Amino acid sequence: MRSKLEEEIRRIEPLDESAIQQAEQHLLNLTKPPGSLGKLEDIARQLAGITSSLHPDLSRKAIIVMAADHGVCEEGVSAFPAEVTPQMVLNFLAGGAAVNVLARQAGADVRCVDIGVNAELSHPELISRKLMHGTNNIARGPAMTRETAIEAVLAGIEVVDQLWLDGYRMFATGEMGIGNTTASSAVMSVMTGDSPEEAAGRGTGINDERFAHKMAVIRRAIETNAPDASDPIDVLSKVGGLEIAGLAGVIIGAASRKCPVVIDGFISSAAALIAASLCKDAVSYMIGSHLSDERAHGQLLLKIGLSPVIHLSMRLGEGTGAALCFHFIEAAQRVMREMATFDSAGVSRG
Amino acid sequence: MRSKLEEEIRRIEPLDESAIQQAEQHLLNLTKPPGSLGKLEDIARQLAGITSSLHPDLSRKAIIVMAADHGVCEEGVSAFPAEVTPQMVLNFLAGGAAVNVLARQAGADVRCVDIGVNAELSHPELISRKLMHGTNNIARGPAMTRETAIEAVLAGIEVVDQLWLDGYRMFATGEMGIGNTTASSAVMSVMTGDSPEEAAGRGTGINDERFAHKMAVIRRAIETNAPDASDPIDVLSKVGGLEIAGLAGVIIGAASRKCPVVIDGFISSAAALIAASLCKDAVSYMIGSHLSDERAHGQLLLKIGLSPVIHLSMRLGEGTGAALCFHFIEAAQRVMREMATFDSAGVSRG
Repeated sequence: MRSKLEEEIRRIEPLDESAIQQAEQHLLNLTKPPGSLGKLEDIARQLAGITSSLHPDLSRKAIIVMAADHGVCEEGVSAFPAEVTPQMVLNFLAGGAAVNVLARQAGADVRCVDIGVNAELSHPELISRKLMHGTNNIARGPAMTRETAIEAVLAGIEVVDQLWLDGYRMFATGEMGIGNTTASSAVMSVMTGDSPEEAAGRGTGINDERFAHKMAVIRRAIETNAPDASDPIDVLSKVGGLEIAGLAGVIIGAASRKCPVVIDGFISSAAALIAASLCKDAVSYMIGSHLSDERAHGQLLLKIGLSPVIHLSMRLGEGTGAALCFHFIEAAQRVMREMATFDSAGVSRG
Repeated sequence: MRSKLEEEIRRIEPLDESAIQQAEQHLLNLTKPPGSLGKLEDIARQLAGITSSLHPDLSRKAIIVMAADHGVCEEGVSAFPAEVTPQMVLNFLAGGAAVNVLARQAGADVRCVDIGVNAELSHPELISRKLMHGTNNIARGPAMTRETAIEAVLAGIEVVDQLWLDGYRMFATGEMGIGNTTASSAVMSVMTGDSPEEAAGRGTGINDERFAHKMAVIRRAIETNAPDASDPIDVLSKVGGLEIAGLAGVIIGAASRKCPVVIDGFISSAAALIAASLCKDAVSYMIGSHLSDERAHGQLLLKIGLSPVIHLSMRLGEGTGAALCFHFIEAAQRVMREMATFDSAGVSRG
């Protein structure tokens, strides 16, 4: 099982530098000052490097929403009760959540994966990969076994694999799991060395008292489990979450298939940090989307090496920020395809 | 003429607080933590306040690109020659510029206005409102007469008026004019009290030497003309530009017709500062789009009271940042229209 993951990671290659150079050459010929479209040009070059094409067809795109529960909820770390996780999964499947609305606008499909929800869920469009009925309480012991953590990562890879066979060529990460900012902050704290206090935030909106309690719970989880920061699978199994592990797999799977993967908010970024630690080259396949209102998100993105382009002060997760970023990716593609060159338009260069 | 402008300004009303409250009530019922969609929710409330409707039809939208030349170009302040202004106007009309590409993606129309290009231009889709063949050199005297400045503002209002009659209900500002960051920095410096050095930037990309020269030219323009900071028309006529004045009119015209107007980059923001100074309530109708790479843009937006949501490090103008912002405005509208409520989806509240 471990070897299957290692094999997948070995498949991930650096970007195609020759395609990046070709994209840069094309961008220099377009009727605008060099570099004046800023990060849209970065995205255009990155897409070329990922796909080895100046005009890749990325029209089929999926937001993979991984859902799971968290035993640590019994410590009272969230503003919402744990029952909201399965309720929101049904909302995703019915198309009524924010991520559904924003995905429709962007022409993306939402694919919802039950990787560890603490309820029996059944729906024709639900991808059932349930490994546990929620993690164990990380304040008292490990979230899951090492084997389960690897299985969760592999589940994410397999979901991408299936979607790739169905024709999807671009992915975004999304999640649902009451309590999952607590696990994400614990993962961040262990992996980056930032203190639990620095890595914590108010999640969906807790008050001062509960926030202080949440920081103490994160500290306790790390002290109790003593995860090995140099071993991302150990970190996942000790203080992580099933959806965080699954999303790390989604990112690995996208990178190994040479597909761009848009990283959503704080929880998705914790998964991206794990993926980056498993394979440094995976970062080249990631596109940062938004800077969320979760306090530590900016610092977390910085550690991964991602630069958020959307500053809407959102703090919802689900994949909502990533869905909005699809518009910018399409913009970058259209610039490459549709803009006139200095020569074709008869415009003087500077 | 002055009284015509005053009459238009008097028509601008504060937003509809009752509609804002209704929008807020609806947002609170949607399946998400309160406020978790951040500035998308701000936009949703603002659109309700502007239009007195929770679901306004803003599908017909126009990016108004005002083009004009600047006599100050003879001082050597730009990386591009002045001949690029008419060349780019033809590029806009042919649909090959960046703003055309991004407008098509957003379902918006580009309407190009010659308000002062130093060339004879003729095209069936060009809106010809030429008032001068470029401004006079502000380093040596006033850009234009007071009467011309008012005429340019009125021209912007009249363009909006005509588009409104054609069914357009949302507008964005765009511009083209080699040399216009110099005029915009001069306007900003006078109106905000920031020094010419603080208000200047590198425009489309000048080197250190030319940048130092540009700052000196801006200082000279202000010293030579001594504009009255309390009189925005005086500032426009002394150190402004025809497209800056025209865009101030576009903003005033949109606000008086209760239409949202998306503010693009640095030059558009200079126009917005003028509009805000002419009428404080006009700011309520503005939607900030992107933070450009032009150095003083963040400070300028702060002075107006706008908060940029797109951080793509662009520095192109034309309306490109505003075009991208249309996606977020549509997102806000879709959230209001399509998201499930806690009751309809059977989701527990926090």
